[in-house]
Amino acid sequence: MKIEIITIGDEILIGQIVDTNSAWMGKEVNLLGWEIVRITTVPDDSAEIKQAFDSAFTRADIILVTGGTGPTKDDVTKNVLLEYFGGKLIFREDIKDNIEQIFANRNITLNELTLSQAYVPDNATVLMNKAGTAPCTCFEKEGKLLVSMAGVPSEMKWLMSNEVLPMLIKRFGDNAAVIHSTFLVKNYSESALAEKLASLEKELTPEFKLAYLPQPGIVRLRLTGRSSDKSDLEKKTEAYCGKIRNLIGNDIFSEKDLPVEILVGNSLKKLGVSLSTAESCTGGNIAHLITEIAGSSEYFKGSVVAYSNEVKHNVLRVSSESLDLYGAVSEQVVNEMLTGVSSVCKTECAVATSGIAGPGGGSAEKPVGTVWIGAKYRDRYLIRLYKFGNIREYNISKASNMALLMLLELLNE
Amino acid sequence: MKIEIITIGDEILIGQIVDTNSAWMGKEVNLLGWEIVRITTVPDDSAEIKQAFDSAFTRADIILVTGGTGPTKDDVTKNVLLEYFGGKLIFREDIKDNIEQIFANRNITLNELTLSQAYVPDNATVLMNKAGTAPCTCFEKEGKLLVSMAGVPSEMKWLMSNEVLPMLIKRFGDNAAVIHSTFLVKNYSESALAEKLASLEKELTPEFKLAYLPQPGIVRLRLTGRSSDKSDLEKKTEAYCGKIRNLIGNDIFSEKDLPVEILVGNSLKKLGVSLSTAESCTGGNIAHLITEIAGSSEYFKGSVVAYSNEVKHNVLRVSSESLDLYGAVSEQVVNEMLTGVSSVCKTECAVATSGIAGPGGGSAEKPVGTVWIGAKYRDRYLIRLYKFGNIREYNISKASNMALLMLLELLNE
Repeated sequence: MKIEIITIGDEILIGQIVDTNSAWMGKEVNLLGWEIVRITTVPDDSAEIKQAFDSAFTRADIILVTGGTGPTKDDVTKNVLLEYFGGKLIFREDIKDNIEQIFANRNITLNELTLSQAYVPDNATVLMNKAGTAPCTCFEKEGKLLVSMAGVPSEMKWLMSNEVLPMLIKRFGDNAAVIHSTFLVKNYSESALAEKLASLEKELTPEFKLAYLPQPGIVRLRLTGRSSDKSDLEKKTEAYCGKIRNLIGNDIFSEKDLPVEILVGNSLKKLGVSLSTAESCTGGNIAHLITEIAGSSEYFKGSVVAYSNEVKHNVLRVSSESLDLYGAVSEQVVNEMLTGVSSVCKTECAVATSGIAGPGGGSAEKPVGTVWIGAKYRDRYLIRLYKFGNIREYNISKASNMALLMLLELLNE
Repeated sequence: MKIEIITIGDEILIGQIVDTNSAWMGKEVNLLGWEIVRITTVPDDSAEIKQAFDSAFTRADIILVTGGTGPTKDDVTKNVLLEYFGGKLIFREDIKDNIEQIFANRNITLNELTLSQAYVPDNATVLMNKAGTAPCTCFEKEGKLLVSMAGVPSEMKWLMSNEVLPMLIKRFGDNAAVIHSTFLVKNYSESALAEKLASLEKELTPEFKLAYLPQPGIVRLRLTGRSSDKSDLEKKTEAYCGKIRNLIGNDIFSEKDLPVEILVGNSLKKLGVSLSTAESCTGGNIAHLITEIAGSSEYFKGSVVAYSNEVKHNVLRVSSESLDLYGAVSEQVVNEMLTGVSSVCKTECAVATSGIAGPGGGSAEKPVGTVWIGAKYRDRYLIRLYKFGNIREYNISKASNMALLMLLELLNE
């Protein structure tokens, strides 16, 4: 099944907003085993939109259109659809009821302009939009289908998930089963992991594919299988997953597709223990990652961002001797930071970082990217030296992930 | 001048990455007064790419192409360009030198595959890519121009800023002057600011436009003028800017288009004073924003993320009486957090936050979104109560910006 996406809107072309809708739709469609063959963004201009429709119908079976469905005069999609498919507008009571319901829920007053959304082309199949006022309309052309949706991401996602994809599966689906297996892998770059799995990749039968999704310090590996023979698919999936586990071993730190800060939080909750962080080069980013998770106050007590040596000494009780003798970026100082922060914050667990994020501050002995990272769980300490690259943001992000991964290692031992 | 963007890559179509390049390019091109007429994303497939080139040449004067320029076999753009424009490959010593320099800087070993990037079509004009190994190649067709760049955002941005845009301006520029004036505005929503400026907007002559770019707690207002009569443009710009200043007054906190954490850093450096942060609901995000700025160790000493009351009391010396009597989310506690953190970190300045980020933890008296924010500069304190919404990430981000804005207010008094 070939699908094209057409997004309509001047605001995308002038770079006022980033089109995140297409990637979301691409991912969902890909999961169903269908193919997005092209994404096109056109302005709010009748001739341009029609030309894009013509062009897309030559290539695709289904055209997913977003944007330009608002009630104001800069939104032209509805009129273009009328002209292109040759219908005439009718007023639909059920759409009016839906709009009134939405405004009642939001406790705001409905105006005439918004009610005009209840007028739709008489040759369109309407899918009700419970997430907004612009109805979703579907048009047929020579056995092919064009679906027009609102461009607001929350409305598009609601429509795709609840109306459009179920309709497409019912009409075009081949009832194939899809199985995704995710492995979160550490200690590998994307290319090193691909090399490790090269023989397995060759062995995969055509209904399977492997995807590599790298993040700083982590590769998300995803095996996707798709087949009409479900029990055969399950058997093969199990066999391939076993081989992946054998090849990568303990460097798979999770088979749940969750951010590492959530995995750490779940382990802490399970063990009933609490966490604090002592951050130099990560500058509070680890605490920020943890506290972005709702409910983290259950296990997270606090952090000391010790950027200056004075704060390391005064608040975290790092000894002046260690700071003088080994320097702030050292195993000894990270060790004392772990002890200090878990003592002042009264936590069983701690992570600590001290390094040179760059671009300045490097030396021949300790170049930019040198980072000592530590994790502590009760009386067990894990402290390691890493050498990252020259890019400050990347170093901060990678050091944060590595610290959380090291703590996870201790918690899961 | 009509410009089209073509982005090449399967990873965009399957939604593995969001195409942020197009929005960035759209914004830059729009600033120069040129028009992006279409954005097309196609797979790494020779026939599809050529068809997109054909189609774009019917509409545009300039085609900006990104992606598919890597040395591995899944990247096909170079071969497609060869076939499409009918050149043959030649080896360029200057590109090889550039690649070797890049690898030397990164301290990694160069392999044969990467060196193949020094082969380029003989009918291409080459723009050297100092940010990566894939050279930028330009091709002519009937007075129109196609520019092929790497898809890695940092490389594309380097090439556009340093090579492509200067070349396009030199060749296609109409010598029109463009003047941008930016106002960073606080205490306004986007729509409230638009309402405030409605009369001015009506008054603007056609060579001017106003853009509103909202961030949590901040609206970036940009006036852009473009005209071949430079002195007239300057006069009008000055007049409009004067009117904007009169209408918005002190809620304009900067006319430099910089993030608030950089504005704060610049003020701190100028005054020769240092900063610490005491964060409850912002969870380290303020420290993270500040320490993402290279060189921030000059003025930033550290932070105490006091998520638990115990840390507020033990580390920040907030009194048990205040915590018991007023609760952690109170003016009194924020006041003591400011005093405490500037004392333990030995800084002249401090910011502090205590609030309910949500979704849990709210009460009738202090619902989710209730945040007390404070700033301190020597013996001057500024503490305010805010009521934000229900979205955790937004509340964290907005509270962080408001804290920095309050400190800026004190520093600039």
